[in-house]
Amino acid sequence: MTNIKKNAVIVGFGGMGQQHRRLINRTKHIHVIGTFDIVKEKMDIGVDFQLKAYSSLKEVLEDEQVDIVVVATPNHEHKNIVIQALKYGKHVVCEKPVTLNSRELQDILDVLKTCDTHFFVHQNRRWDEDYLIVKDIYDHQKIGDVFHIETKVHGSRGIPGDWRKEKAYGGGMMLDWGVHLIDRLLMMVNEPVESLFCKLSTIRTQDVDDGFTLHITFKSGTTALVEVGTYNYIQMPLWYVLGSQGAMVIDDWDLNGSIKYFNNQMEKDAKPIIAGAGLTKTMAPRNEETLIVEKVPRISVDYNEFYDNVFNTIQGHDEQIVKNHEVMAVMKLMEDALKSSETGEVIRYSS
Amino acid sequence: MTNIKKNAVIVGFGGMGQQHRRLINRTKHIHVIGTFDIVKEKMDIGVDFQLKAYSSLKEVLEDEQVDIVVVATPNHEHKNIVIQALKYGKHVVCEKPVTLNSRELQDILDVLKTCDTHFFVHQNRRWDEDYLIVKDIYDHQKIGDVFHIETKVHGSRGIPGDWRKEKAYGGGMMLDWGVHLIDRLLMMVNEPVESLFCKLSTIRTQDVDDGFTLHITFKSGTTALVEVGTYNYIQMPLWYVLGSQGAMVIDDWDLNGSIKYFNNQMEKDAKPIIAGAGLTKTMAPRNEETLIVEKVPRISVDYNEFYDNVFNTIQGHDEQIVKNHEVMAVMKLMEDALKSSETGEVIRYSS
Repeated sequence: MTNIKKNAVIVGFGGMGQQHRRLINRTKHIHVIGTFDIVKEKMDIGVDFQLKAYSSLKEVLEDEQVDIVVVATPNHEHKNIVIQALKYGKHVVCEKPVTLNSRELQDILDVLKTCDTHFFVHQNRRWDEDYLIVKDIYDHQKIGDVFHIETKVHGSRGIPGDWRKEKAYGGGMMLDWGVHLIDRLLMMVNEPVESLFCKLSTIRTQDVDDGFTLHITFKSGTTALVEVGTYNYIQMPLWYVLGSQGAMVIDDWDLNGSIKYFNNQMEKDAKPIIAGAGLTKTMAPRNEETLIVEKVPRISVDYNEFYDNVFNTIQGHDEQIVKNHEVMAVMKLMEDALKSSETGEVIRYSS
Repeated sequence: MTNIKKNAVIVGFGGMGQQHRRLINRTKHIHVIGTFDIVKEKMDIGVDFQLKAYSSLKEVLEDEQVDIVVVATPNHEHKNIVIQALKYGKHVVCEKPVTLNSRELQDILDVLKTCDTHFFVHQNRRWDEDYLIVKDIYDHQKIGDVFHIETKVHGSRGIPGDWRKEKAYGGGMMLDWGVHLIDRLLMMVNEPVESLFCKLSTIRTQDVDDGFTLHITFKSGTTALVEVGTYNYIQMPLWYVLGSQGAMVIDDWDLNGSIKYFNNQMEKDAKPIIAGAGLTKTMAPRNEETLIVEKVPRISVDYNEFYDNVFNTIQGHDEQIVKNHEVMAVMKLMEDALKSSETGEVIRYSS
């Protein structure tokens, strides 16, 4: 019987580490048995949940009861902890961003090749309902051929006052949120990137970006705008998608927004309207009868899928969902985006 | 007594020519006496308003009663008509885009130098209330230092089915709407452009752009996004402005939208929220008590100012509002934008 529960220890028991405990508890197949954190108070939280407080990373790795190490430390620690855990024969789940750069990830993947164990990156926002709704619209051409996608996340508090402000710890919004938005975009628009142009913002930060605007042109000509902002007192929609037969907007995480489909009912040439100080024929509003307007359609999401897949992959019953070459593609694209911002130039890819 | 009424003839009596008649009629100082159009039916509309139907452009220019020639033909005719009218000693008001390119405008300005008359370009959207509201916010730093400006116009009908689709006639959205949005942006952010990056869209057009996205970085670091779209079944706001102490959005020409001011009331570090499949501390919403939320403030606009200024400039009583070097700056920036789109590269300006 190979379907025995696997034991996990969470290394780094801050906000995300604690979130992993909740996520794992929702699956039937994995059991969190302990934590390790360099801050004793964090482990005390685990002790309240009957989790063993390990005295060192070494103790975790040497414990043969431990099958899976979950790494949820600040980003700059990921590489070393992951590599050590892999070398000890553990399976590893690592928070995003997987590492500070693609070279560090390559170091991990080089070690992984010599191991019999698995390495999973927690790109959890592939399970965001807003994204899955857009992906469904995209995949099934519900608004025709999508030719432009905007994916944005705006906050107004700046960067929280911890290691996320420090470059050495892997801070900055590109690594924090860019890694999600880019990952999802590349999963959805499954074609080569032709070029990109990026501009980081450093409105009140010195060391890291507190936001960015990234333009991507794909091989087919489809364009995307990926944007993160942390000084936006008014937030723009999470998604804005344009297709040949309609458009969709998702305003927020409550999934307010709308989808409009062109019903192919032609209308006469527009009459100019007065707009501001002038006339416009081009921007005259469409006869609403030519559009079908609906609320954002809802779809069901299985939030347990990530850890179920971790377990099933380990058991050899399933293919890994978040593939490491996909994670690498995102790391490399982010590096190119940083380079574009630094040089002020467009990065082009020859195909 | 020099304040005698000036007589104007409108050359090109389509939609915009007819709009000029209405605009001029609202001023006390200029009198429309006639029209010329190569399509007789257009002049018949003028005849209904007791306007003389001239038989040729030459007849207009040779008529000593005519002080001002208003040029509202398709764009490719502007240069020749303007130059002829100037050479005949007429004052000229010309629709936008002034010409097809900066070289044509330079030809006009070279002739103008040899004349005693005046040349005015009808950049009428400097009098759009939405723009003047944003300019007021910007000038008076009502949301602090503005660091990002988005100015967009979205329609969903494509380009109207006339000469606006043809390059030879000066069609395309850059020349039609870009010329307004860029003009206003340069008037507001009164500093040198450091770089730009532009991408034209040709979703269903071959010959001209049916929209574009243009990124501008100014010398101070302020960024702007200028966008025109004609296949947007859902429209994004006309204006989105970010400042150090607030933000403003103007959704549409009815001036729906809001302005939010940060009231400098600090709040505690954010608590993470659940958003989609994950937690976020950075994007946790701000405590609404730290913001003052208002509707878009209204301001009064004098739509007669353009033609009043035409008259007063001719009389020597006033300085020309829409300056020809400003019009030239817009023409040159549009050319650089087209070049950026064609090459796929960033255009940088050395200061």
